[in-house]
Amino acid sequence: MSFQTNISHEVIRSSKLEEKAKELKPELFRKKIIPEHIVEVVENEEKMHGWEINNVKPASELSDEVLGKDNSLILDFGDHQVGYLSLSITPVGSPPDAPLHMRLTFGEMPVEMAESFSTYDGWISSSWLQEETIHVDVLPSELKLPRRYSFRYLKIEVLDTSPKYKVSFQHVAVETITSGDEGQVEAFVHDDEELVEIDRVSIKTLQDCMQDVFEDGPKRDRRLWLGDLRLQAMANYATFKNNDLVKRNLYQFAAVPNQNGQVSANLFVEPSLIPDDTFLFDYSLFFTTTLYDYYQATKDIETLKELWPIAYRQVEIGLERLDDKGIVQDDDSWWSFIDWHPDLNKQSPSQAILIYTLKRAILLAQELKEDTKIVELENHLEKVMEATHKYLWKDDIGFFVSGDKEQISWATQVWMVIAGVLDEAKSRELLLQVLDTQPEVEMNTPYMHHHLVEALFEVGLKKEATDWMRMYWGGMLRDGADTFWELYNPKDKTFSPYGNHLINSYCHAWSCTPTYLIRKYLN
Amino acid sequence: MSFQTNISHEVIRSSKLEEKAKELKPELFRKKIIPEHIVEVVENEEKMHGWEINNVKPASELSDEVLGKDNSLILDFGDHQVGYLSLSITPVGSPPDAPLHMRLTFGEMPVEMAESFSTYDGWISSSWLQEETIHVDVLPSELKLPRRYSFRYLKIEVLDTSPKYKVSFQHVAVETITSGDEGQVEAFVHDDEELVEIDRVSIKTLQDCMQDVFEDGPKRDRRLWLGDLRLQAMANYATFKNNDLVKRNLYQFAAVPNQNGQVSANLFVEPSLIPDDTFLFDYSLFFTTTLYDYYQATKDIETLKELWPIAYRQVEIGLERLDDKGIVQDDDSWWSFIDWHPDLNKQSPSQAILIYTLKRAILLAQELKEDTKIVELENHLEKVMEATHKYLWKDDIGFFVSGDKEQISWATQVWMVIAGVLDEAKSRELLLQVLDTQPEVEMNTPYMHHHLVEALFEVGLKKEATDWMRMYWGGMLRDGADTFWELYNPKDKTFSPYGNHLINSYCHAWSCTPTYLIRKYLN
Repeated sequence: MSFQTNISHEVIRSSKLEEKAKELKPELFRKKIIPEHIVEVVENEEKMHGWEINNVKPASELSDEVLGKDNSLILDFGDHQVGYLSLSITPVGSPPDAPLHMRLTFGEMPVEMAESFSTYDGWISSSWLQEETIHVDVLPSELKLPRRYSFRYLKIEVLDTSPKYKVSFQHVAVETITSGDEGQVEAFVHDDEELVEIDRVSIKTLQDCMQDVFEDGPKRDRRLWLGDLRLQAMANYATFKNNDLVKRNLYQFAAVPNQNGQVSANLFVEPSLIPDDTFLFDYSLFFTTTLYDYYQATKDIETLKELWPIAYRQVEIGLERLDDKGIVQDDDSWWSFIDWHPDLNKQSPSQAILIYTLKRAILLAQELKEDTKIVELENHLEKVMEATHKYLWKDDIGFFVSGDKEQISWATQVWMVIAGVLDEAKSRELLLQVLDTQPEVEMNTPYMHHHLVEALFEVGLKKEATDWMRMYWGGMLRDGADTFWELYNPKDKTFSPYGNHLINSYCHAWSCTPTYLIRKYLN
Repeated sequence: MSFQTNISHEVIRSSKLEEKAKELKPELFRKKIIPEHIVEVVENEEKMHGWEINNVKPASELSDEVLGKDNSLILDFGDHQVGYLSLSITPVGSPPDAPLHMRLTFGEMPVEMAESFSTYDGWISSSWLQEETIHVDVLPSELKLPRRYSFRYLKIEVLDTSPKYKVSFQHVAVETITSGDEGQVEAFVHDDEELVEIDRVSIKTLQDCMQDVFEDGPKRDRRLWLGDLRLQAMANYATFKNNDLVKRNLYQFAAVPNQNGQVSANLFVEPSLIPDDTFLFDYSLFFTTTLYDYYQATKDIETLKELWPIAYRQVEIGLERLDDKGIVQDDDSWWSFIDWHPDLNKQSPSQAILIYTLKRAILLAQELKEDTKIVELENHLEKVMEATHKYLWKDDIGFFVSGDKEQISWATQVWMVIAGVLDEAKSRELLLQVLDTQPEVEMNTPYMHHHLVEALFEVGLKKEATDWMRMYWGGMLRDGADTFWELYNPKDKTFSPYGNHLINSYCHAWSCTPTYLIRKYLN
């Protein structure tokens, strides 16, 4: 994600909380992976982005390949990998009388091997495109690249050697890293192979995003976002059970709120812990719900006690946006994420997320026996619920609306159901009407699709939920996903909110939730 | 230089000689240099390659410059530098939410700042063009580039940051290295400021080429060539007096001859001592003459004794190329360098170099009291001289000719004079006739121009020699040289034997000899 913001803000840093986060620095599990095949990328209109990978020969024959100026080859590592590349380069011919100049291009998808990065014209930084040009002065050489890459395919291009020598490549390997311990994941047995595969790929997606923090995507943004963290934590409890990593990330957010006490939408952890200057209405509230989920998974009352003031403050900040009527104000002064959709009005889904959060905040306050706060929160909840029914629910059309123009979006209905604004029967009816009438303002991200499926499961529409998962995540699998993607619109497969699909992340945390959904609702 | 060769050869390695070379590894002198100005490069037809550098502001104001996507600036370090670059990069704006992608371009000449390296279309490797593209994941960053560069100008281009931040640069510096100790150079005092300047720039050129070995050029080929070594050693005796470096390089050549005992035209010293598979008639003979010069400068009889067998063997190999008449055979099976000139016939200048070498070999044999060899060498010299007069001198036209087509070149006449084939008066007459009639096959490199000037001095044409030096090296100065160039043709200033002047070396060892000539003949 990337937002243009210019809110002036001050960081109120708590060294105590930051120190606790540091102590929870995760162990990284490492594995050496070697490529499986030398492949070629060819046009095929039927395939994702119009490109298909074909095997040419086993990668064990790599060292027989001799590359001179303008020669290239593509290696396939067999699956998505996150880690550090190393390779040996040997000169062939006369002693090398000029440096080797080469380009390495890393791709999660065939399209990254096929389309030149110089064609990139999106609005977010081209610096995310994973490509290095390197001069090697002395050959033979053992190259260890210092940057981490996220990829399945590696293109090696020799830009120049000299007329007197060429090169061959050996010992190409990636040392993968993750803080997700495979040994912790329980086997998932199910008759339906597609569900088993969706579960497997969800876990792989989560694993590749589990690094020093829960990253949103190992290719891009490689960063801790609250909205992603919430979903990753849910999937984590069902699989890797690295609960300390969730705890660490909660402490990190809690350590650097702004002068208003609001936690940032995302954090940088290098060169030191720095909150981004982006604040999102929904993401700040998710600090509280993520703490709630963490407490449910761990019953770690110490952490709850220590982070509760921050969690409570997020709810207060959410409530401060309510107008006199008890509705979240919609104007140009705020950002709420909800989904990547240029036309989506954020008011009503944000209202629903506030309700969803209030309910969990009350449960935490009860756990902590914060009696005054319980009463306060319950009063707020009652008012907000009332206002929601009064002003946002349109009984004549049977939908919640959002914003001045009374927009009817999938996001609004889904979040109202998740927030439990209606009873289960009415919620079920609402969702069936959504599926039936297909409101125009649709969902664009796996993040939003996750919430639809969760809502469907929650109201007992198990078949619809499962079918949707098969359609959407199963669709990604049929379109060649090794890990689930940041963005997938079955009706517009090249969709990118960034203006160019080359920059999309094809291993993205918010897409990893089917394992959570499957293991919770279908096991 | 670069030659396409495919002679199969075997290296006969002497660990003993190699070990001696290793023990002579030079101390490197280091100096930190910071840029003087931020400059711009503008078109100007009057200037070298059509480009001129103008100062924009002092480099002390660099940190005020804020660069975003597609912004760039050029720094001028005030003089030619060889060394390692370091710089600090600071983000400006929001916390950096994407890597910095930048390009650094190093140029010895304004043209390298002005013309994109992607336009390079020469036949030798583009990998010599000094350019790096770098991703920086974490900012602020202290960047230390691992490769050594040869440059005066540095272009910093920001390829991308993100819409949320830009960058500024601080502490840009180069740590220069050389094995030439300035403290050893005696001041040169002369009324003629142009000669003083030519001397100064010669020394700077030599100094920047003096590294772990005497390199031909620090930009390209960064390598020990025998032809360059010979001239560098001469200039070195007159200036830096790092005689151990000459000794080291002689031992390196001697350590790795081929199965025939011939020393290579050039050596690689990384990853280990490797002779190139290029053998040049003239360069192999220069092993012997360089040993002769070294002995004259040092009277180091131990080294002479140890390397004499190799030196003698080079003479034998040279003699083996003589036909029955006593003339160096000219066919497609050999390479002799002499000059970069596509039309130059190499026979007669090579004949002259054989004579030049025989004379010095005889003096070395006398020093070593190798009586049998003295007689043998003297017999050979007599025959070769006789044949040269008989077959190559054309009395009717007053020139030496070369090859089947009896080519009259500057190179032939110059080398015949240096070799002392004629007496001094006749030599003087010959050179005056060359200057007067301007034979068609001219000289292309400072290397060949050096030999003309040396020849003029040797026969007492001091004014002509000095005028030529002013015209040629002075011409480079007037055309903006900070160090003397690999190639300079006053009639065709963009001349490159490589098909593109971007790849030319603008600090080249074989161009450093005026300090030797001035200090020997004009002091």
